Amino acid sequence: MGQVAWKALFLSLFDYKTEKYVIAKNKKVGVLYRVVQLSILAYLVGWVFVVKKGYQDTDTSLQSSVITKLKGVAFTNTSELGERIWDVADYVIPPQGESVFFVMTNLIVTPNQRQAMCPESANIPDALCAKDTDCLEGEAVVAGNGVKTGRCLKDKGSTRGTCEILAWCPVEKRSKPKMNVLATDNESYLKTCRYSQEHPYCPIFVLGNIVRWAGGNFQEMASEGGVIGIQIEWNCDLDKAPSECNPHYSFSRLDNKSAETSISSGYNFRFAKYYRDAEGVDYRTLIKAYGIRFDVMVNGKAGKFNIIPTIINISSGLALMGAGAFFCDLVLLYLIKKSNFYRGKKYEEVKSSSRKSLSSPTLNGNQSPEQLGEL
Amino acid sequence: MGQVAWKALFLSLFDYKTEKYVIAKNKKVGVLYRVVQLSILAYLVGWVFVVKKGYQDTDTSLQSSVITKLKGVAFTNTSELGERIWDVADYVIPPQGESVFFVMTNLIVTPNQRQAMCPESANIPDALCAKDTDCLEGEAVVAGNGVKTGRCLKDKGSTRGTCEILAWCPVEKRSKPKMNVLATDNESYLKTCRYSQEHPYCPIFVLGNIVRWAGGNFQEMASEGGVIGIQIEWNCDLDKAPSECNPHYSFSRLDNKSAETSISSGYNFRFAKYYRDAEGVDYRTLIKAYGIRFDVMVNGKAGKFNIIPTIINISSGLALMGAGAFFCDLVLLYLIKKSNFYRGKKYEEVKSSSRKSLSSPTLNGNQSPEQLGEL
Amino acid sequence: MGQVAWKALFLSLFDYKTEKYVIAKNKKVGVLYRVVQLSILAYLVGWVFVVKKGYQDTDTSLQSSVITKLKGVAFTNTSELGERIWDVADYVIPPQGESVFFVMTNLIVTPNQRQAMCPESANIPDALCAKDTDCLEGEAVVAGNGVKTGRCLKDKGSTRGTCEILAWCPVEKRSKPKMNVLATDNESYLKTCRYSQEHPYCPIFVLGNIVRWAGGNFQEMASEGGVIGIQIEWNCDLDKAPSECNPHYSFSRLDNKSAETSISSGYNFRFAKYYRDAEGVDYRTLIKAYGIRFDVMVNGKAGKFNIIPTIINISSGLALMGAGAFFCDLVLLYLIKKSNFYRGKKYEEVKSSSRKSLSSPTLNGNQSPEQLGEL
Repeated sequence: MGQVAWKALFLSLFDYKTEKYVIAKNKKVGVLYRVVQLSILAYLVGWVFVVKKGYQDTDTSLQSSVITKLKGVAFTNTSELGERIWDVADYVIPPQGESVFFVMTNLIVTPNQRQAMCPESANIPDALCAKDTDCLEGEAVVAGNGVKTGRCLKDKGSTRGTCEILAWCPVEKRSKPKMNVLATDNESYLKTCRYSQEHPYCPIFVLGNIVRWAGGNFQEMASEGGVIGIQIEWNCDLDKAPSECNPHYSFSRLDNKSAETSISSGYNFRFAKYYRDAEGVDYRTLIKAYGIRFDVMVNGKAGKFNIIPTIINISSGLALMGAGAFFCDLVLLYLIKKSNFYRGKKYEEVKSSSRKSLSSPTLNGNQSPEQLGEL
Repeated sequence: MGQVAWKALFLSLFDYKTEKYVIAKNKKVGVLYRVVQLSILAYLVGWVFVVKKGYQDTDTSLQSSVITKLKGVAFTNTSELGERIWDVADYVIPPQGESVFFVMTNLIVTPNQRQAMCPESANIPDALCAKDTDCLEGEAVVAGNGVKTGRCLKDKGSTRGTCEILAWCPVEKRSKPKMNVLATDNESYLKTCRYSQEHPYCPIFVLGNIVRWAGGNFQEMASEGGVIGIQIEWNCDLDKAPSECNPHYSFSRLDNKSAETSISSGYNFRFAKYYRDAEGVDYRTLIKAYGIRFDVMVNGKAGKFNIIPTIINISSGLALMGAGAFFCDLVLLYLIKKSNFYRGKKYEEVKSSSRKSLSSPTLNGNQSPEQLGEL
Repeated sequence: MGQVAWKALFLSLFDYKTEKYVIAKNKKVGVLYRVVQLSILAYLVGWVFVVKKGYQDTDTSLQSSVITKLKGVAFTNTSELGERIWDVADYVIPPQGESVFFVMTNLIVTPNQRQAMCPESANIPDALCAKDTDCLEGEAVVAGNGVKTGRCLKDKGSTRGTCEILAWCPVEKRSKPKMNVLATDNESYLKTCRYSQEHPYCPIFVLGNIVRWAGGNFQEMASEGGVIGIQIEWNCDLDKAPSECNPHYSFSRLDNKSAETSISSGYNFRFAKYYRDAEGVDYRTLIKAYGIRFDVMVNGKAGKFNIIPTIINISSGLALMGAGAFFCDLVLLYLIKKSNFYRGKKYEEVKSSSRKSLSSPTLNGNQSPEQLGEL
């Protein structure tokens, strides 16, 4: 007998159980449900799958290597340096062509600096003095160029002066020259493509155009310096051919050009060239370089068909259908005229202690006594 | 009476409502449904959870810092430079060991350049001239080294020559030497591990091996230059011990070695060393450096158990079960012999205006009149 | 007649079908189901939506550009270099202010090196020799400074010496000086904000504070060198105003400070300054620079409301509700006293061959014969 029971249990595993449905011949709710279903289907197919490519797994971590190279010479004629030619080895820093590179467009040269004692620049507040005791020996000048020696240097007849410092002397002057840059971009003979609206995949750029596209003014940026971001965006659909995976370039100015007094306005840095004279004493030429720094930033994402996001998105659609059915149920059971009747049909009340016939469902407990009376 | 109604409503909230099921004692559909259920379970457990670790939240944004250091000396003997020793300070650019570094393996030296007037290189098309008017004064030579002075310099008896330019003179020659590099990697005495198949986590690499693994030929790359990517891939399961989170190295050549005429073939850049003579005049040695640039690119993702993706994946499985049931319903209700009968059982038609007994469900409206007649 | 059938079929499309429910007036299971529902709702609203912002699509790929600038001078007084002032152009490498920068805090200077023959450093094992044949001509010294000439140089009366090498001579000594650094950060007059707990968005940092926050000792790091990571974390909620998207800074030491013998302890590199004497012979000053390298690493993610993850998360909640109902069904049908009765109500067994009345559901097949007898 036990064996028979187990066999029945096992066989019952292969009985198919399916939900019992009530057909409410109410066209209003029926049409509403079909509209809800179609909306969800349209959202799922149109938005999730076609527009947002919900069947793809997207990877945004990208490995990139950027190689840059600059071409061109510039000619300047300043009172300080005289006539001078600037080629790539002179104006590109660092020279090796990484993703971040700097094109020097203006400079303050302080030639032949030697380690010695000299007056600090009068532009630095901490170095101003009236007497020697204002210049505490061994103290560094705040935001200055050296360490105070303890003496206050004054012009004859003047009551105020600047502290003497131990530093690379003479110290840098603060006046900024305007470099007279001669543009040299004549495009004949060179390899002919140039990046533009018409040639969106050409990797050769004219510097002035980049500045213009980034919303900058070349003359002003060349004088004050600036930072320009070159964004390269790859948005690849790996379900298509690799040749359709193309970069999109955009340019933006990264430094805050409007803020005159901001610490982040413009772009400059100092570097020095070191020399040694016949006596073996080091001296250097200090260069405060103004120019345009370019940051090449590569970003991208690649999508490829993947079963897991596909099924998750389909499942979310199915669950939405369930929510839609729940919403239509609410309408059917509470909002239409004959909702009491449908409520009684949908819900079959059972009570184990009741002596009611198994086959006669009654209206559910949500009914108020009035409704029960109506029955 | 109103109070009683509210109490009934409140109590009915705690009535448990459960879907009414119809048991179809049809083994075919029952087995089909169990097979569908098992397939979904296998997909969910096997693929989503075990293989794809769907219970983890994955983070692909990674912070990395790369420190590189090179060791070794090279000896060269060229007609231009004579016998020369190259150590790390000579051949590594930049010296500070960042993620992108360059090892100089060949070079064109143009010593003792001074700012002066001299003929442009004859290899540059824009500088070729027949008469002085071909060399417009003040115009820069396209892709050249300087600004034209207005004179056309010709060899005696020759009808064609090159423009005279204001530039760093003499200009660079275009011939490329073959540097005679002596490899110095004798591995005794040094710290002993080297990266290889057997030591996949050793962070010390032999340069020649990297080039070989990247599919390059060291002699050819040393002469023409090239770019090699060193990908370091971390794929960490943070649910395991941190010591099981190990890097995987791979190497690939990034420049386009086959394209002889491509602008991106090989790798080189120019830099200069600046000197000053006893009279205070600047001169420089221009170096066109060929070599191998290494780009260390770090990439990674880390997964960790997270309840949200876990539940989303389980839910998608549950929703799939629902879709499976829907599919089996279709089979039961439309494809098997007795589908009419089951359709009548599953769907209970109700019409509020009908005088039918509440307890006698009828077949649903999908039936054609013939089917109704069959009843 | 066919037309009538098609019309009926079409109309039946707009019949609303809704699951038939059985109301089990069992308060225990009813309360259990409400508790399960409330738990899922709390998880969904509280954890998924409020805490984890599950309604947002998160993008972790971020484009960043880092600009750094250092200020300050240092004074040193060593036996080798005498009194010396170090300014930004001297101690910051590279000078251009990228995301990775190095502040030199200690150095070994080897001035006036020329390409010549000289003894290799006695610290290098491969260069030790007893006789000339130990120094194979043309062989490079492993981890050394040059190429052996074939001669073994010994002090008078000594039996052991070092190989003579062709190298930049004299070779670097291995002793490391302690540089006497004078801190210069007096904060008056300078722009006043400094990064601290109280000013978490001020982008001006005091070097010593960074080292302290990273858990390092400035004196020790200045002597041995080290690498410090400056992590900038942006965690932006783009559903709020952009001004609420602020960076969070953190600092950590990246080199392995404890491992004395490790290859990655400390941080140093060599570079050289090249000079040319009156006869045109190159010589250089080799500098082994110890110092603190700072790696600025920017990381971030930005979340924005997106309908797709919102619906996926809601759907997962709905599917969970279904799972909760399944669980409560199990309780109702198998664990409570009257489960047999409810099982009979929930499952309506139908057999196409049976002559049972359509309207009388029977108990399902899971029942054992005893249970059937009980009926």
